[in-house]
Amino acid sequence: MKITVQREKLSTAVSHVAKAVSTRTTIPILTGIKLKADHEGLTLTGSDSDISIEVHVPLEEGENWGVTVHESGSIVLPSRIFSEIVRKLPANEIEISVDDRLLTLIRSGQAEFTINGLNANEYPQLPQLEEDKVFSIPSDLLKTMIRQTSFAVATSEMRPILTGIMWTLEEGLLKFVATDSHRFASRNAKVECSESLRFYNIVVPGKSCNELVKIIDDDQNLVDIVVADNQILVKSNHILFYSRLLEGTYPDTNRIIPQGCKTEIVLSTKEFLQSIERASLLSREGKTNVVKLITLPDGNVEISSNAPEIGKVTETIQPKQCNGEELKISFNAKFMIDALRSIDSSEIVTNFTGAMSPFIIRPTDHDWSLHLILPVRTY
Amino acid sequence: MKITVQREKLSTAVSHVAKAVSTRTTIPILTGIKLKADHEGLTLTGSDSDISIEVHVPLEEGENWGVTVHESGSIVLPSRIFSEIVRKLPANEIEISVDDRLLTLIRSGQAEFTINGLNANEYPQLPQLEEDKVFSIPSDLLKTMIRQTSFAVATSEMRPILTGIMWTLEEGLLKFVATDSHRFASRNAKVECSESLRFYNIVVPGKSCNELVKIIDDDQNLVDIVVADNQILVKSNHILFYSRLLEGTYPDTNRIIPQGCKTEIVLSTKEFLQSIERASLLSREGKTNVVKLITLPDGNVEISSNAPEIGKVTETIQPKQCNGEELKISFNAKFMIDALRSIDSSEIVTNFTGAMSPFIIRPTDHDWSLHLILPVRTY
Repeated sequence: MKITVQREKLSTAVSHVAKAVSTRTTIPILTGIKLKADHEGLTLTGSDSDISIEVHVPLEEGENWGVTVHESGSIVLPSRIFSEIVRKLPANEIEISVDDRLLTLIRSGQAEFTINGLNANEYPQLPQLEEDKVFSIPSDLLKTMIRQTSFAVATSEMRPILTGIMWTLEEGLLKFVATDSHRFASRNAKVECSESLRFYNIVVPGKSCNELVKIIDDDQNLVDIVVADNQILVKSNHILFYSRLLEGTYPDTNRIIPQGCKTEIVLSTKEFLQSIERASLLSREGKTNVVKLITLPDGNVEISSNAPEIGKVTETIQPKQCNGEELKISFNAKFMIDALRSIDSSEIVTNFTGAMSPFIIRPTDHDWSLHLILPVRTY
Repeated sequence: MKITVQREKLSTAVSHVAKAVSTRTTIPILTGIKLKADHEGLTLTGSDSDISIEVHVPLEEGENWGVTVHESGSIVLPSRIFSEIVRKLPANEIEISVDDRLLTLIRSGQAEFTINGLNANEYPQLPQLEEDKVFSIPSDLLKTMIRQTSFAVATSEMRPILTGIMWTLEEGLLKFVATDSHRFASRNAKVECSESLRFYNIVVPGKSCNELVKIIDDDQNLVDIVVADNQILVKSNHILFYSRLLEGTYPDTNRIIPQGCKTEIVLSTKEFLQSIERASLLSREGKTNVVKLITLPDGNVEISSNAPEIGKVTETIQPKQCNGEELKISFNAKFMIDALRSIDSSEIVTNFTGAMSPFIIRPTDHDWSLHLILPVRTY
């Protein structure tokens, strides 16, 4: 293999695929990045066997030169040191050539690195997915859907299935659901796909979703998503992102959403968030993380918290509306903060069905997202 | 005590004094920030007994309101929670009032915190320094002098005196020296002081110097420095910064500086730095951190390094000048990178007196700073 490649393009590609590489793998070859040069250009691959990322650098893109392949071939280079070298090279052009003992010469300007490579034939093959279940979604919408649900996935491995986001698709409606069994977040959106396409119980690991958010662009270009039996593939520009799916059956979350409503409060998202953040200063200090919400006879709402040794905080906020029964309820401040921070709308409505029942938070301007929090029993 | 204070001023003052507060102190009252209100305004104090910081908020500064003191008094409040509360308060005005059980009410907008305070009489008194040894220096120059020497202080406590920067003053010339016995950095500057003022062996802890850099402004306003027997006091605007001095005798560093020169090389600081940074990618990986410098017969200089399992790197750089005997020398890449990063000049000269002797690095455009590095014996 012998190529000359444009530094910025190589550097971007390396930083993307390096995100999938783990230093803690038990498979030595997976600590490396695979480079493959052929008549179409250069393809880089990184994988930790859960996530695999492939980035292609074409010969040229429009007017811009990307890579010149003098001799086809492939090599695996140690990820961390190769990433650092590429980032520090002095010139615009980088020459990479591999000899038959896998010694790899990386030259740029006056700098010359010789690195011991590994045999690319030993690198695992990426899965070949059947591309019959495919839909398209704008890149920034996919990122928003992940951002508005991923915080609610379980961090403990007690019930592994809950560490993922469950994706379902029916009648062109894509739905993301996440829960750690104390709180719940969902986000829906219309997507482009064939009318007959539907899937259920596709559970994508939260970690994969968070890595995906980092590498796809923040624009409205469509990304294609292929759903297979135990893998998902996201295609964006020159990037292919593979993730394994979680095995098992995701719990039916529809029945945990309360239908009635005894107290309804409409609030400014920002004002409510800031008030909870202040109260959480003391609840966090007191280790309980619990804040209390009380409806006052004058129609206002009181947020309070206390930490026995340190002190207490009380704040009155004026809701836009407050209807129904009076209410005293306590909940985990962090869950409320996570939910409110994920909501882009300026106003939210909260529906309560008593101090012991889960309650719902929704933006007032659309029905695409819904949050649910279980209260803490302090009364 | 009862005051109303402007939020930004309080917030800045709290964030300054909090830098001196340690959570790991064995003296409970020092985990707090002391507030003292009198007819001149509000004074905040934080201390870990090595460093003490006092910030004054005057009643008003020019046109700007700072604080209104309704009732004089003082209180000590827990540092971390008080800092966070101040940062999150909603309104421009903050009211703080203390009752006779030391319960402190902090009110801003609709938010109301009640925090248990501690008795300010138990807070240690700051030292009263004799102000006979005083000099003045522009704030940004003091910061530069610290930045250009502090990286060379010892991090190990083997010889505690080396963990500080030694300050000397004679004939209006202030000199900072730091060494960890493997490398050495010094920086001199003319300062404003009485002609007769002189001091030696004033060793200020590196940690104190680094904290000082964070809180004084990056401008040319003069700061006054008071040198006492076992303390130093830096006065800048409304800030008083106290640091204890290290006890003991700092080694005589004058005799370690070689006088002759067998090989002299003049280099672009940036080009040399980048080349060493590239070489250090491999030397760091190989754990030795050693890079090699060789003068070539054609007048160029070769920088190289290798890590047995991984590979090697070689780079040729063209010096501006290269005179004297040929040279092969090895040194710690980190020491060279630290020195070169601290130098603001675009060109440096290196003076060598053989592969086994310490060598000198200086900017070519002034004599105010000097760096020295001991080579590593590999030949």
